[in-house]
Amino acid sequence: MKKIGEQTYSLQNRPKILSSAAVVGEKEGKGKLGKSFDIVEKDPYFGKKTWEAAESEMLRKCFEKVCFKAGKTEKDIDMILSGDLLDQCTSSAFTFRKINVPYLGLYGACSTMAESMALAAMLTDGGFGETVCAITASHFCTAERQYRFPLEYGGQRPPTAQSTVTGAGGLLLSVKGKGPAVRCVTIGKIADAGITDANNMGSAMAPAALNTLVSHFRDTGRSPSYYDAVFTGDLGAIGHDILEEMLEKEGFPADKNYFDCGVMIYEGDEEKERRFGSGCGCSASVLCGYILPEMKKRHWNRILFAATGALLSPLTVQQKESIPGICHAVAIENEGDDRDE
Amino acid sequence: MKKIGEQTYSLQNRPKILSSAAVVGEKEGKGKLGKSFDIVEKDPYFGKKTWEAAESEMLRKCFEKVCFKAGKTEKDIDMILSGDLLDQCTSSAFTFRKINVPYLGLYGACSTMAESMALAAMLTDGGFGETVCAITASHFCTAERQYRFPLEYGGQRPPTAQSTVTGAGGLLLSVKGKGPAVRCVTIGKIADAGITDANNMGSAMAPAALNTLVSHFRDTGRSPSYYDAVFTGDLGAIGHDILEEMLEKEGFPADKNYFDCGVMIYEGDEEKERRFGSGCGCSASVLCGYILPEMKKRHWNRILFAATGALLSPLTVQQKESIPGICHAVAIENEGDDRDE
Repeated sequence: MKKIGEQTYSLQNRPKILSSAAVVGEKEGKGKLGKSFDIVEKDPYFGKKTWEAAESEMLRKCFEKVCFKAGKTEKDIDMILSGDLLDQCTSSAFTFRKINVPYLGLYGACSTMAESMALAAMLTDGGFGETVCAITASHFCTAERQYRFPLEYGGQRPPTAQSTVTGAGGLLLSVKGKGPAVRCVTIGKIADAGITDANNMGSAMAPAALNTLVSHFRDTGRSPSYYDAVFTGDLGAIGHDILEEMLEKEGFPADKNYFDCGVMIYEGDEEKERRFGSGCGCSASVLCGYILPEMKKRHWNRILFAATGALLSPLTVQQKESIPGICHAVAIENEGDDRDE
Repeated sequence: MKKIGEQTYSLQNRPKILSSAAVVGEKEGKGKLGKSFDIVEKDPYFGKKTWEAAESEMLRKCFEKVCFKAGKTEKDIDMILSGDLLDQCTSSAFTFRKINVPYLGLYGACSTMAESMALAAMLTDGGFGETVCAITASHFCTAERQYRFPLEYGGQRPPTAQSTVTGAGGLLLSVKGKGPAVRCVTIGKIADAGITDANNMGSAMAPAALNTLVSHFRDTGRSPSYYDAVFTGDLGAIGHDILEEMLEKEGFPADKNYFDCGVMIYEGDEEKERRFGSGCGCSASVLCGYILPEMKKRHWNRILFAATGALLSPLTVQQKESIPGICHAVAIENEGDDRDE
């Protein structure tokens, strides 16, 4: 059986990541990771007339790039799994209406990269499609308008508020070919710790990350030190601290190997008040633009990617509902690194 | 290989539909199909304080019912695949935050039942989970507020406008056990025919249904008469007529076996101006409440379920964008009916 423990599935055919690509905005290009991204676009409109069209254009460029890097065209792609933060996931739908590939729409908020990748890995592993694309994006300006205030309003944000990353990340998975392999996935349950402050989403998502990581470690019998690095999605510094503390209490203390994409993305940016990143594009661009290329260089050989999502909407916030969180985890390993299998 | 032709995958382990259930509102209970549904709830609030909480409660009842009918509890369910029409899919997320089962969120607009079922079929067939739940819902009052006007406004609607069904439908799939089996699935591409009228979504979705059905027939080498019935999701009478005409032009004329869940759901309701249904809950409740139980009675032995979705948002309508459509198809057959395999 492919199920291990309660929530984890092993991928016996080891789907490989043939290629990955990331496209980001100007601010994202200013951090330490800036040079890693395939495209840093200075025009926040990406040459389009609306922020929404800009987000779609960024996603389209990312898709084009990830195909190109693997030497594939859209004819070679069996399925695209994508989603985004916009109401009715229109930046994905509007991108892929022009791409002649079967499409499955997802909604996992900022966990979308892990969700799409977990599903793509299970599908290709099961023989459903030779090459499947997992891809997602977010844009600061579309997210601000939808979740908070239009930019023109100039609203101030509390210190716990994260900043939606303008970025897209995508990858191609196939059981044939070469690249880091997805070895197992842990599908998360929704966790709701009762947090109602939409400006403190790291705290709202930390319990979901905790549940999924603990399940992953218990299901697989691994300790955190099995991995060279464990990346959460976009908890930010506050959420990440909470998570580390909770993981320690559960018996899984960090071995200096817990990182958070939301903390990493703006690291090194010299702006006075550094924000922490969030949004589907945060963990997606860090994974696809930085982590996976570093794995190819053997900087890391085994990583766990655990993107987190806050499943709120502006309406649920108005209705004073608490914020449910979710987290899915994907274990990626370089081939030829079977240390203590 | 499991891929047949361009977009279709065969399910060699024949995942069975162990149980299905449908919960609907009062209006949906008045049509000819009314008696088929498991629960007809007269209170549009489902005992809750908001329409959104009502939608979640309906979905929760449906989940409980579908588990109960199969003699399962939430412990027996490996994954839930769900989605809905609300911004950020909150009716699903808020339902399943209380259910201790790994969750994958989808967005396929009104095609969600076919999308969740296709994915659940591929996952269980591939050994990823023994029992997987595919489920979705929509509610007239939440959809009206979000897409059109709050009910209190009393806005008039043009004759082509469809009516969002208050309904939920869900089913459990497993390769073990008994029930009608999913034999193959066709994953749709996004089609955009340039329709911009959000009150005429049947016409916007018909090209997607056409593409997916034609692909399905070509991929499998089947003619429409292979099936006892072919059900589209919620094209309504106008969209359904357009589809029949287009299918005939493509060489796949109806053999009196093309039906549409959006047409069927309010059939027999004596209200003067009968509407056609739409929404995730339309095809979901008709499939899970009526079609599958009729299959168990051997009224039909082979059906093709092709739910359709319009991938628009209120914002894209304001931005004068056209409406992309999508359609996924799921072929379901009674076991022991291998007429001309």
